[in-house]
Amino acid sequence: MACLFCQIARGEAPAYRVLEDEASVAFLDHRPLFPGHCLLVPRDHYETLMDLPPALLGPLFRNAQVLARAMEVALGAEGSFVAINNRVSQSVPHVHIHIVPRRKGDGLRGFFWPRQRYRSAAEMEAVQKALREAIERLQVGEGSAEPQR
Amino acid sequence: MACLFCQIARGEAPAYRVLEDEASVAFLDHRPLFPGHCLLVPRDHYETLMDLPPALLGPLFRNAQVLARAMEVALGAEGSFVAINNRVSQSVPHVHIHIVPRRKGDGLRGFFWPRQRYRSAAEMEAVQKALREAIERLQVGEGSAEPQR
Repeated sequence: MACLFCQIARGEAPAYRVLEDEASVAFLDHRPLFPGHCLLVPRDHYETLMDLPPALLGPLFRNAQVLARAMEVALGAEGSFVAINNRVSQSVPHVHIHIVPRRKGDGLRGFFWPRQRYRSAAEMEAVQKALREAIERLQVGEGSAEPQR
Repeated sequence: MACLFCQIARGEAPAYRVLEDEASVAFLDHRPLFPGHCLLVPRDHYETLMDLPPALLGPLFRNAQVLARAMEVALGAEGSFVAINNRVSQSVPHVHIHIVPRRKGDGLRGFFWPRQRYRSAAEMEAVQKALREAIERLQVGEGSAEPQR
């Protein structure tokens, strides 16, 4: 099955590339939230953030830093929005980091979706407990010497 | 000036912590998009993603991976949304990574803001050129031996 972002990474599909190195490629999103909106992808195919080898995280997010800074320098952005959709709302199943230039009052709703409240401290404690236990199992699973308590 | 997230990192302000290690702390957002929504912060104070020392990126995003996976295991999430607001829409000026559990049809608009189109290939090329030149300057500035061409 042909993956569009693999094809872009290999130079087999056209894209307006802005940064590339051994591990990753960044190019303009063709339907941007704002002009300059880039997608940063690893050259190798991984579906989600969770699937990336840990050794790739440093080099990949270093490039995300450079792109976010470049938007300020090159496009006069006042800030940026950096986001990853894993599976839900993910249009191409090859992990991609959105880097979007922002300006105050630009109309992007960002986190202005309706926020919720926990019904009680007990609900919050139950969610905390479930996450802590899952994290402990995940970290033991990868051989961490010091599980979280 | 007291920074709320520094206070949480030092244990001086209360929070429902779910993960902590030498470099970072994650806790429940008290006004979640969905229950389980966490904020992951470095213990040391940096304002934005761009300000983080590169050596912190690997350990920090490794924890983002663990949190995203834990939401599937612990909360039955089908996916996740991982996002950083830099300056614009950033409520606390201490960099924080939102990790939000997602389900299909959960109503989160995510990237369903109106997307734009570039008016022409020339506009797209101009944006590409501006970003590439800025990236080259940034990478030369940090002593990269191989500026992007």
